[in-house]
Amino acid sequence: VSEVDTTSPLFLLLDLTGVFAFALNGALTALQVARLDIVGVVTLGMMTALGGGIIRDVFLDALPPATFSDWRYLAVAAVGGLVAFLFGRHLERWINPILVLDAAGLSLFAVTGALKTVEYAGGPAQAVILGAVTAVGGGTVRDVLIGRIPVVLRNELYAVPALVGALLLVTATKLGAPDAAAAVAGAGLCFLIRMLGVRFGLEAPAPPRSDREA
Amino acid sequence: VSEVDTTSPLFLLLDLTGVFAFALNGALTALQVARLDIVGVVTLGMMTALGGGIIRDVFLDALPPATFSDWRYLAVAAVGGLVAFLFGRHLERWINPILVLDAAGLSLFAVTGALKTVEYAGGPAQAVILGAVTAVGGGTVRDVLIGRIPVVLRNELYAVPALVGALLLVTATKLGAPDAAAAVAGAGLCFLIRMLGVRFGLEAPAPPRSDREA
Amino acid sequence: VSEVDTTSPLFLLLDLTGVFAFALNGALTALQVARLDIVGVVTLGMMTALGGGIIRDVFLDALPPATFSDWRYLAVAAVGGLVAFLFGRHLERWINPILVLDAAGLSLFAVTGALKTVEYAGGPAQAVILGAVTAVGGGTVRDVLIGRIPVVLRNELYAVPALVGALLLVTATKLGAPDAAAAVAGAGLCFLIRMLGVRFGLEAPAPPRSDREA
Repeated sequence: VSEVDTTSPLFLLLDLTGVFAFALNGALTALQVARLDIVGVVTLGMMTALGGGIIRDVFLDALPPATFSDWRYLAVAAVGGLVAFLFGRHLERWINPILVLDAAGLSLFAVTGALKTVEYAGGPAQAVILGAVTAVGGGTVRDVLIGRIPVVLRNELYAVPALVGALLLVTATKLGAPDAAAAVAGAGLCFLIRMLGVRFGLEAPAPPRSDREA
Repeated sequence: VSEVDTTSPLFLLLDLTGVFAFALNGALTALQVARLDIVGVVTLGMMTALGGGIIRDVFLDALPPATFSDWRYLAVAAVGGLVAFLFGRHLERWINPILVLDAAGLSLFAVTGALKTVEYAGGPAQAVILGAVTAVGGGTVRDVLIGRIPVVLRNELYAVPALVGALLLVTATKLGAPDAAAAVAGAGLCFLIRMLGVRFGLEAPAPPRSDREA
Repeated sequence: VSEVDTTSPLFLLLDLTGVFAFALNGALTALQVARLDIVGVVTLGMMTALGGGIIRDVFLDALPPATFSDWRYLAVAAVGGLVAFLFGRHLERWINPILVLDAAGLSLFAVTGALKTVEYAGGPAQAVILGAVTAVGGGTVRDVLIGRIPVVLRNELYAVPALVGALLLVTATKLGAPDAAAAVAGAGLCFLIRMLGVRFGLEAPAPPRSDREA
């Protein structure tokens, strides 16, 4: 489907930016939700940043995970956690940076997860699914570790934009679009849907009422 | 030990039925325990349905997991989650369908986990252990995600029937029993013990009192 | 770096002692924190004992994990869980055995995780990181299963001593120290730092105050 390989500059840029966004997000969550010290804040940041990619690499048998075979992943995740620890109070002045960073990581990992699945000989459907799994993995690890029901299960749009973004990427590359354009379009669409969901509180349908029961 | 391979109709039937039972169970749990919308209900159903098999395949290095290399697993899990979402209120009229479905998934995965371990060159003891791990995996993922102590740790018989069912299967095939008979017997025995435990509140021994201490 | 292979008596001794310490720790935690029966106590003990090593083996693609290909791991973990179940009330008379056992398991797994990473062709930095991941893995699995925020995220020194111990081991073997001496030194230093942290409540730095903000 795609000519992108996981050592290309484009892939690395997208993947490491996603790592950085999730590291900031996880560390800010640690500061906000739990009274964690520097080690706890940086550790939760790193686990959030690296969780999705590790799950992806385990499923693809791309072992050891990129995290442990390429020092840049650990370094970017650690720096992101440290930055959030040091400047967290300043970052909190922004409009809800935690949600924006989470949406950014989600969007970038949906795309890199799908691209890496294609490279490891998966078909288009597998690429879309594993893209979404990669995208929601980090936030799920984060929420399980701090004892929250994972955001992917709660009532905001989360898995759906990841699936849509990965689907757009896979479709666009199938149709011959350049890799960079397809990746930006896929990540952008995912980010847009996710932020609209956050902004307007769009929710997925609730279970049907049972009023019509006899 | 066994001639069953993981592409045989028997294996697929058992494995996909287990997936369906756990998808219903996980989705009904999501409806009952947490106020989840359609995406959350279907997602928890799918994670419950696929968690055990994914753990099994990761341990056996059968990667990517069957879930992502055979579309039927994802389809059956998604349909199970949707059915539970749409008809959940009707299903709740039955006598405790959540527990029955959980016992069914447990029993089927104990058998398929053991069969797949044998195929991937594991010995009989490993087959019994990995059968039980596969069986309890889905429910453990489900409970961790919604913040409950996993059922395998709580006070009902859960791991024991899975071990017994897998042991019966492995022993019977060793003794030359036909695969289908051994599988049905193993799953049936596991289901029977589990449901007796649920019905009569049979509990494993509590820790010894310390009255005899000086 | 090291001549130790994972079938050497030294490696097995260190790894199985770590398994035993974590099995006692996990089972005592189950007795203390939750009202679990024998199956729950032994199961949590086994999951705590084997969790770190399984994560290590999955990341190294050393599959199936040693746990399932070498019966001694399962046996030692099960015996540890049973011993804690039977004699738990006596063990509790010791000075905080749970914390001491946790520190012992942490220290031994930091060393065995690093050694096994070196054997599977990882570089020194990867060995240090995966040593620490192996060390904190069991306690993280334990805490997630019983619904606590993992100790690695809470405010005691936990990840840092594991990193320091693994770093000492890797450095010492690089410099030509005998394997056994390097392993004992690495595990000993990790244990010492961890216990000092527990004893004197040493904490990592808290996030900076924001007093200097305009």
